[in-house]
Amino acid sequence: MPGVPLVGAGADLAEVVSRAIASAGLTLADGDVVVVTSKLLSRAEGRFVDLSRVIPSDRAIALGDEVGKDPRVVELVLRESTAVSRVAPGVLVVRHRLGFVVANAGIDASNAEPAGAAANSGPWVLLLPEAPDASAATLRRRLESDARARIGVVVSDSFGRPFRLGTVGTAIGMSGLPPLWDRRGERDLFGRPLEQTITALGDQVAAAADLVAGQAAEGRPLVLVRGLTFDSSEQEATTLSRRPEEDLYA
Amino acid sequence: MPGVPLVGAGADLAEVVSRAIASAGLTLADGDVVVVTSKLLSRAEGRFVDLSRVIPSDRAIALGDEVGKDPRVVELVLRESTAVSRVAPGVLVVRHRLGFVVANAGIDASNAEPAGAAANSGPWVLLLPEAPDASAATLRRRLESDARARIGVVVSDSFGRPFRLGTVGTAIGMSGLPPLWDRRGERDLFGRPLEQTITALGDQVAAAADLVAGQAAEGRPLVLVRGLTFDSSEQEATTLSRRPEEDLYA
Repeated sequence: MPGVPLVGAGADLAEVVSRAIASAGLTLADGDVVVVTSKLLSRAEGRFVDLSRVIPSDRAIALGDEVGKDPRVVELVLRESTAVSRVAPGVLVVRHRLGFVVANAGIDASNAEPAGAAANSGPWVLLLPEAPDASAATLRRRLESDARARIGVVVSDSFGRPFRLGTVGTAIGMSGLPPLWDRRGERDLFGRPLEQTITALGDQVAAAADLVAGQAAEGRPLVLVRGLTFDSSEQEATTLSRRPEEDLYA
Repeated sequence: MPGVPLVGAGADLAEVVSRAIASAGLTLADGDVVVVTSKLLSRAEGRFVDLSRVIPSDRAIALGDEVGKDPRVVELVLRESTAVSRVAPGVLVVRHRLGFVVANAGIDASNAEPAGAAANSGPWVLLLPEAPDASAATLRRRLESDARARIGVVVSDSFGRPFRLGTVGTAIGMSGLPPLWDRRGERDLFGRPLEQTITALGDQVAAAADLVAGQAAEGRPLVLVRGLTFDSSEQEATTLSRRPEEDLYA
């Protein structure tokens, strides 16, 4: 969706989203899903960090050496994580404090500069949002009350994956729609129970939004997904993360 | 897309797709992407296997015991694979001969019965398509020549993933659109090169199609994706599979 400015710390995200939807000539309706990128949310939350003010620990320095990354970035990665998953030259995959497994704790160095940054500051990076599930719920409440409609909100990021190349849109915050959609109770055309039919609804919405967003030359931090049918849900995106003890690849 | 019959072995897939598109009142246009499920393609290819005619090897019997699966299914999984990735009760993850990593070699037991199966036959399972990239290319050529349009074709399946619960649509065959979309050359708003910007276009198209397909009560083996912009490509879906030696989770 066009019309979304590069927001700064303290921006009122509900206001930004409402304006963009209105300026596209649209009104939120029941069943709509608003997908915002984690970057938009992080900027609004002011999750900018000036690397020149980060003091790396000995562990971050050693790890930075091993993977060939700025030890100050590694320091932030470690602070944002509960465990290191894999280390290799150029690669640092961690279990994020939010529960998912992601390279570099999702820390972003592009478009990571706050508005009005001093000329002698930086370089700057942007951390993932503080609590994207809670922020999704807050955004949803605001938008629902303004629009008098039942909607869903997804906070998305682009994640790499084991086994497969390229990034895909992934839900790191959700409110209003079920993260997982369980169709196991249904039966196939011959009456056998359907197998393997819990779909990751949240991630598929994020992937569809990322597909559309990526088509715009300048990127799109906001996508409106229309036409889905879902039962309203209070489950959070953390539901999508496999617990480490149940993960054969942890 | 409605109007797709449960096809049997030898069905002319291009004919099936063309009819469904026409009966929806649509005509294929430049830039359209036709997404067919692997199951539709497998059925058309006649990839049905009668388990009562499968003799499991000693290895399949031992492995079936370990994971708690029918040793005849395990035998087929092993025949379809180049390596076993992970084994646990209820779980058998392999590297498929087609290059990707998938549970149970993607073998499917729902809606897996061929038309006219003898009453005393089966149970039946359905293997993944023989060569989904080649089939995607064939289907694309047929559809392009009939419609005089440049299109893309994706053969999709629903895959589980490490770290995250639920399945997502995944591209296992492609023709006409690039599997990976490389935006690394582009720059962010502050002139820094964009990081981590190779998106898995094929998988995102498959996920978006699966999102839509899953909405229909009876499922949808065919989805038409409109409105994407992409450069025509002859690259195959195998491009999306990380090579084992470059995979930290292999």
